Amino acid sequence: MSTQKTFARGSTAPGPVTHGTIRLYSMRFCPFAQRARLVLRAKGIKHDIVNISLNDKPDWFIEKNPLGLVPTLESPSGQVIYDSPITCEYLDEVYTDNKLLPSDPFEKAQQKMLMEQYSKVIPYFYKIPLGRRNGDDHLEKLKSNFFAGDSITMIDYMMWPWFERLEALELKPCMDEMPELKKWTERMFEDPAVKDTMHSVDTYKAFYKSYNAGTPDYDYGL
Amino acid sequence: MSTQKTFARGSTAPGPVTHGTIRLYSMRFCPFAQRARLVLRAKGIKHDIVNISLNDKPDWFIEKNPLGLVPTLESPSGQVIYDSPITCEYLDEVYTDNKLLPSDPFEKAQQKMLMEQYSKVIPYFYKIPLGRRNGDDHLEKLKSNFFAGDSITMIDYMMWPWFERLEALELKPCMDEMPELKKWTERMFEDPAVKDTMHSVDTYKAFYKSYNAGTPDYDYGL
Repeated sequence: MSTQKTFARGSTAPGPVTHGTIRLYSMRFCPFAQRARLVLRAKGIKHDIVNISLNDKPDWFIEKNPLGLVPTLESPSGQVIYDSPITCEYLDEVYTDNKLLPSDPFEKAQQKMLMEQYSKVIPYFYKIPLGRRNGDDHLEKLKSNFFAGDSITMIDYMMWPWFERLEALELKPCMDEMPELKKWTERMFEDPAVKDTMHSVDTYKAFYKSYNAGTPDYDYGL
Repeated sequence: MSTQKTFARGSTAPGPVTHGTIRLYSMRFCPFAQRARLVLRAKGIKHDIVNISLNDKPDWFIEKNPLGLVPTLESPSGQVIYDSPITCEYLDEVYTDNKLLPSDPFEKAQQKMLMEQYSKVIPYFYKIPLGRRNGDDHLEKLKSNFFAGDSITMIDYMMWPWFERLEALELKPCMDEMPELKKWTERMFEDPAVKDTMHSVDTYKAFYKSYNAGTPDYDYGL
């Protein structure tokens, strides 16, 4: 868990990426960046995290990634990778321990099709129950503990960040109608990578309050 | 090039997929389906094509893919894969001859980042010159014949279908301001997979005319 405060415009750029590690540019409350944080943690990859003030981005960050998005990865040789599914697949390919994506091309395609389907509903995730309903149907049909079988794989981590935030957004009661998804959520809360990257309900509530007021407190709780 | 007429609602389903081949559900004028047709042809994969009437889809097709989208792949064992980038990557992984995606994880991530960037502009591709301008800048910066070096790779085939249609849509003059992209287009027209999957300007014009009139003639020219 990164405890370093955000870098904003006018800040001095952090030093070069240490050999044998990788750097993640992140924001502590961003669900897309959390996907990469989950994968880094689950695979046991040595990394450092540089938190970025998303409403006041440093020029040196825009120079690295003109789109200015988190998550962005930087390797010691200066390779820059962004877009959350791309960063996660890159990490799984480069670091071959604890593989999260299946090696079988069809099983891998299945995870991507499922993720693509969810990507379309993510913007509406908290507004309409469709995304959650689909997830419940999927788990019920599959009769498995996780989205692609009985252990956690990439697809679970890709979905997770939006579920972690349900209680803070006072949407937890919706889960009562989705028993399979509710059980999945409970299993996920036991995962070490989830435990290590999550925030408490109170922390999310405080962050969202500042965010909705137009003054996001990216460093809340540090 | 498939010359079989479209299957519409009420049609009899085609027989099972022949062992040692793969089937593509397609529509002759769909740029997304053309991506898969280009990859099948470029890699020399044995396949058959079943064309689908997109405004009157057969029930047996919806049973295979409830989203009803082309391209959709079907293997002899009944595995179903859809979404154009996912089908193309699946084909490149299963059929290891004539690899179109680089094996280096960073180079592969670069192609995906570029494609992701273009996916966002594709819906506006014909309306705003941004997509084309980006492409020109990219090629100029790279000083290469194709999008990821001096030979055709996946990214070129992913981009191509929208460029093939420029002349039919009377947008070819725009290319005069993009000299690098224009040269790329000329090189692409020489590629055997492009030649084999393309339609003439007149054919596109006739199809678009029927499409704009609300009565798309999916079988035009057959």
